[in-house]
Amino acid sequence: MRGLCLDFNDPCMKLLTVGTVAFDTVESPYGKVERTVAGSCMYSAWSASFFIQSVGMISIIGDDFPEEELHILEKRGVSTAGIQRIQGAKSFYWHGRYHPDMIHRDSVVTELNVLENFHPQLPDDYTTTPYILLGNLTPTVQQQVIDQLAEHTTRLVVLDTMDYWIKHSLEELQRAIALADVLSINDEEARLLSGERSLVVAAAKILQWGPSYLIIKKGEHGAFLFSSDDIFFVPALPLAVVKDPTGAGDTFAGGFLGYLAATDDTSFNNMKRAMVYGSAMASFVVEEFGLQRLKTLTRDEIQQRVLKFKDLVSFNL
Amino acid sequence: MRGLCLDFNDPCMKLLTVGTVAFDTVESPYGKVERTVAGSCMYSAWSASFFIQSVGMISIIGDDFPEEELHILEKRGVSTAGIQRIQGAKSFYWHGRYHPDMIHRDSVVTELNVLENFHPQLPDDYTTTPYILLGNLTPTVQQQVIDQLAEHTTRLVVLDTMDYWIKHSLEELQRAIALADVLSINDEEARLLSGERSLVVAAAKILQWGPSYLIIKKGEHGAFLFSSDDIFFVPALPLAVVKDPTGAGDTFAGGFLGYLAATDDTSFNNMKRAMVYGSAMASFVVEEFGLQRLKTLTRDEIQQRVLKFKDLVSFNL
Repeated sequence: MRGLCLDFNDPCMKLLTVGTVAFDTVESPYGKVERTVAGSCMYSAWSASFFIQSVGMISIIGDDFPEEELHILEKRGVSTAGIQRIQGAKSFYWHGRYHPDMIHRDSVVTELNVLENFHPQLPDDYTTTPYILLGNLTPTVQQQVIDQLAEHTTRLVVLDTMDYWIKHSLEELQRAIALADVLSINDEEARLLSGERSLVVAAAKILQWGPSYLIIKKGEHGAFLFSSDDIFFVPALPLAVVKDPTGAGDTFAGGFLGYLAATDDTSFNNMKRAMVYGSAMASFVVEEFGLQRLKTLTRDEIQQRVLKFKDLVSFNL
Repeated sequence: MRGLCLDFNDPCMKLLTVGTVAFDTVESPYGKVERTVAGSCMYSAWSASFFIQSVGMISIIGDDFPEEELHILEKRGVSTAGIQRIQGAKSFYWHGRYHPDMIHRDSVVTELNVLENFHPQLPDDYTTTPYILLGNLTPTVQQQVIDQLAEHTTRLVVLDTMDYWIKHSLEELQRAIALADVLSINDEEARLLSGERSLVVAAAKILQWGPSYLIIKKGEHGAFLFSSDDIFFVPALPLAVVKDPTGAGDTFAGGFLGYLAATDDTSFNNMKRAMVYGSAMASFVVEEFGLQRLKTLTRDEIQQRVLKFKDLVSFNL
């Protein structure tokens, strides 16, 4: 049985998430937060921690990053041992400004800082983790992580990426995609990557490159899950207020994989449920700036919201 | 009982659709058709005729319009007696060119012709029709139709409109909206009309102006149905090929109201089914240019496609 925990004294990791741990300054029509704790790895780890205890983070920070933010996660059962802290260096910093449509945004400042020399090293007890989430990073860095995994224990590798790598590192990206089980991109990226306008045709093409599943995210318009045989769609929940869409995709991915890891079931039917749980998590995170909403969120609220997704699309013939 | 047919010798009209009967020249990346038969009233009547026999059309044409196109509809149980034919005048003509994204389009030519003097006159036996579809027209013309309806027999008035009237005839439009039971607009129009970015907030605002239901269409991203208590969403079916999106909204509306008229049930649960049937009809019409696909469509194909919509969003918790 793959993903089996062999060492009972040291509960093995169930889910590994690799990405940025950063500071964000975010401006939207609803306000502004300065240097709030953020990053793809933070959003996904927070989100996954609502579903399982043994989440491991792989990232890099400077000595400016507040230790207590990692302690809060440790208390939730998240291991931060895989986060390298570089003395005398600064954490990744991004400053973004959303347009009134809350979709388009300008990057005002992007300081890579420690991220410029990020070569993730998996602690030994992380290499047998069954569920792996590779957040948007240089494709070669993503592949470095895959290379360190003990192949026979890996159950599902989810790879996230963005248009920049499609445009500038296509070969490296395609090598990484070939090693992933699930590719997670947005609709414009799917079109760019495949050269196809139709998402059905794009999906069929991309699935031939290796992954068994393709998630196509459409932001406020929902998300598709494609396999070679099946299609599933989950809408985004229509919300009265969206204050900050930053991290919605990572929160979705953390919820999606957290649910799969907790249930340890990668059937298409269970993946459909995971898509709904991921979408529910994303619907919460955008309600407030940064990680704020996740920090007050309860499992009861998640369950209530998942029922709303069910109601939204249910009909009888 | 409202909408009851009282004269058994002359089966009364069940659904009235008001709009344009026109010629379209359409260019898309998939080809071009010249002066094909089109118009909102044609698309909606064709679509509704798959669900009920007694559909009446209210429109205006010139003497250039081919009689046989009306005969085909008559054979399907559609009455064309409400279409005024103006001798020595030309039918409405539109020439559009779709961008590669198949969403944006340029109007190359728009010739109103007979439409400039369109004052719909309902034949006497049309005034008691229970289900009314007011396609996109000048709001005052839409209101002229409502004014001719025998109030106690009207069961549901669906009003379609567009951004032009929101920008240029807001007062007249709001008077027409106040008289409608269902307003059908797209997401950008809902935002423009309400001044709200969130579709939930926009819907709550617009529903206070009179209509009991609001349909917000999002093209390839699906459609919402709002009442003051409920929300329902139906995605658009992801298609391999979309050749011509012209008339998709009218075909949707015709299927939606055709289904409601056929079942004579305006409960929210039945409206949800009607949304799915409408979406199924729209998913067919875009597969070919103009009315082509509807002319070969069968009820069996509709039923099969509706099941695909069910599969697309179904999940068990």
